[in-house]
Amino acid sequence: MRTVYVNGTFLPEDQAQISIFDRAVLFADAVYEVTAVVGGKLLDFDGHMARLRRSLKELDMVERFSDQELLKIHRSLIEKNTLQEGLVYLQVTRGVADRDFDFSRLDADPGLILFTQAKDLINNPLAERGQCITLVEDLRWARSDIKTVQLLYSSLVKSRASEAGADDVWLHRDGKVTEGSSNNAYIVTDNNEIITRELSRDILHGITRQAVLNVARLHQMKVVERAFTIEELRSAKEAFSTSASGFVNPVVRVDDQEIGTGQPGIVTKLLRANYIAASLRTAI
Amino acid sequence: MRTVYVNGTFLPEDQAQISIFDRAVLFADAVYEVTAVVGGKLLDFDGHMARLRRSLKELDMVERFSDQELLKIHRSLIEKNTLQEGLVYLQVTRGVADRDFDFSRLDADPGLILFTQAKDLINNPLAERGQCITLVEDLRWARSDIKTVQLLYSSLVKSRASEAGADDVWLHRDGKVTEGSSNNAYIVTDNNEIITRELSRDILHGITRQAVLNVARLHQMKVVERAFTIEELRSAKEAFSTSASGFVNPVVRVDDQEIGTGQPGIVTKLLRANYIAASLRTAI
Repeated sequence: MRTVYVNGTFLPEDQAQISIFDRAVLFADAVYEVTAVVGGKLLDFDGHMARLRRSLKELDMVERFSDQELLKIHRSLIEKNTLQEGLVYLQVTRGVADRDFDFSRLDADPGLILFTQAKDLINNPLAERGQCITLVEDLRWARSDIKTVQLLYSSLVKSRASEAGADDVWLHRDGKVTEGSSNNAYIVTDNNEIITRELSRDILHGITRQAVLNVARLHQMKVVERAFTIEELRSAKEAFSTSASGFVNPVVRVDDQEIGTGQPGIVTKLLRANYIAASLRTAI
Repeated sequence: MRTVYVNGTFLPEDQAQISIFDRAVLFADAVYEVTAVVGGKLLDFDGHMARLRRSLKELDMVERFSDQELLKIHRSLIEKNTLQEGLVYLQVTRGVADRDFDFSRLDADPGLILFTQAKDLINNPLAERGQCITLVEDLRWARSDIKTVQLLYSSLVKSRASEAGADDVWLHRDGKVTEGSSNNAYIVTDNNEIITRELSRDILHGITRQAVLNVARLHQMKVVERAFTIEELRSAKEAFSTSASGFVNPVVRVDDQEIGTGQPGIVTKLLRANYIAASLRTAI
């Protein structure tokens, strides 16, 4: 049984509870981060903490926990669960109060939840066979750049796609791809240009996205940050997604159509290998 | 201390907890209803249950609880808390599972949470003095007709408005009002036409909205269901909101401008009085 962390206490997962009056439960009033662990070490930890601060700030939430405190809890959980490879999930909530939309007079301690998930990240079967995705209209709120727990739409459409045999969904707005259900989206053109949507309020500012783009530029690959259309996706040479849990994962099919050769592409494989190598070098 | 209901058990509110792995906490994967109580009786209960079924259906959630079971729990809570006037909040979650966006293979019991809030509904000071509202762009997801706990945006903008001295916000999209933070929005024109946005995926299908429109039609008032612009709002004779907790509440100021005379209007007062009378007659 896992040991998890809830509001100051390490405890067995079957005792890990929060109040029904926590605003996470009543208003989805909470933000989160997921950090990958390989060889017992955290990948891109500083990036995740920087994004957490940004999410808190955008939502007028107080910053009560230092990066050092949070790092200590992450490491304790990795140790207590002898986690070699997988994820650490962290959630900060606005805290517990009787139900009221108006939190302007709230005087509550923020909630803090962390737990681990063991998972093969390096040897991910999706990296070998590639993902089949379906396209779905992006109906999420207009601040997808803030990493809140308002994940119902992504979860719903991913589950429906899964029922239909697909691995994931990519979302689109006005004919252009925004991102995947919980990952950023990319195509590679015939000229080996890597195209991914520019940062805005429409997409999550992926920590892995930033690291992968750095890797691409280091290897003299051309990166263009702009939205691409569904048509560009369908005629791309390669397509892939990036996320903290998936690293770089090829997309080989969109709805009923193969992308490129229908096999994971060379650029995607190269980026995956080099991203993993680079992030392991800086893991803490 | 209140007695609340959590997953089959009545217990004191300070012991009311759910697992951190409940999908309500991790994915905002839950729907809710709020039913008014006056004189210890439930208002529009059947309407709220019908909307709950609709929300569950739209989200591929199972219906595990009958209206009769839910009515029994509502009544038990009213009795245990000797609630004369206030609200009963009900939430159904998709249940507990290790964190995964994909719920297509989920085999979990739905979660069920209910609690009461004592509140003066009939003698609401806002009904006497009228609400001051501010206008804010509607950035919510495109399925605001489903009553999910994804309430962060409404909560955030209402709190900011409250900080600035306003009572609530009304949301607008493409220059037209959608609805309030947690209520439907109306204007009354110089011709005494009552205008409120038509039902669509853009707004909550208010149970109180339906009841108030019925009352208006019974009293030979002209009701037009269409979106109204911000300009129409500013030049309206009256404006008001409806909700299960607020009934019918006048709006007397929008940002820095008075609506009509700057006092609660006659049509609004009439609708409030008649809605209350009608809903008390059918309370159960």
